[in-house]
Amino acid sequence: MKLDPKTDLKLERTLAAPRALLWECWTTPEHIKQFFVPHPHLVKDCEINLRIGGRFNTVFDVEGNEMKNEGVYLEIVPEEKLVFTDTYSEGWKPSENPFMTAIILLEDAPDGGTKYTAIARHRTPESRQSHEDMGFFGGWGTVLDQLEAYAKTMMR
Amino acid sequence: MKLDPKTDLKLERTLAAPRALLWECWTTPEHIKQFFVPHPHLVKDCEINLRIGGRFNTVFDVEGNEMKNEGVYLEIVPEEKLVFTDTYSEGWKPSENPFMTAIILLEDAPDGGTKYTAIARHRTPESRQSHEDMGFFGGWGTVLDQLEAYAKTMMR
Repeated sequence: MKLDPKTDLKLERTLAAPRALLWECWTTPEHIKQFFVPHPHLVKDCEINLRIGGRFNTVFDVEGNEMKNEGVYLEIVPEEKLVFTDTYSEGWKPSENPFMTAIILLEDAPDGGTKYTAIARHRTPESRQSHEDMGFFGGWGTVLDQLEAYAKTMMR
Repeated sequence: MKLDPKTDLKLERTLAAPRALLWECWTTPEHIKQFFVPHPHLVKDCEINLRIGGRFNTVFDVEGNEMKNEGVYLEIVPEEKLVFTDTYSEGWKPSENPFMTAIILLEDAPDGGTKYTAIARHRTPESRQSHEDMGFFGGWGTVLDQLEAYAKTMMR
């Protein structure tokens, strides 16, 4: 897909887990809690209504402070593509100050495992930059490490 | 559906045309050109890719000035519900300053024809108010008149 380097961020990696399992991790509240934020932060709660426009809401515990996030799914192609955003809450209610739209792509890797691509699209170059400064690459990279390690425990 | 009177606008009317025909009008470029903006303004061009995230782009002629609009479809339930917005262009590229999200609902009316509901959701009370001040009710009402008259010519 065509990206805009001024407003988009992208992370690619091959993970040692099958697509179907990574998809299950990404779309199930109990699994989301295991990898979705870098430890020692925690996902305290997660609500998923896995349909177009359905809610993807989370509550983080960040050093004892509760952080609520509301979002929706924009596109769902099972085991291939998941698009979600904080631009809306359920019912297509627009957010006043949306931050980003995330696109997760899963493909079979040529030598086994899954080619994993995470894209974050932003409204402005400034919000892209602030996301990078907040630690996009480190943070999303850590999430990938956690996802891979957790998925491996499910493969035993 | 639950609306927020601070940020949403709604127009309801019963139209003397069947749902299937109104759906066809709303989802076909050649028909869109016939009703989508109040005369004497014109739709010069319309591009539709009728799938989730697909483009709904139009070019208006407003007193000789070209006005380009890019948007996407968020939800498509044939003959029942169409959701589109300028919040993204095709490929889930976020717009810097999205204006609104439109929801068109079609139901069979009890005495024939179609109960037609048009909803415009906005990010802030200010953008809702500016939309009302720009003539939401008059403008979208005129569009409904045009849609009904045009659909009737297709029923002959």
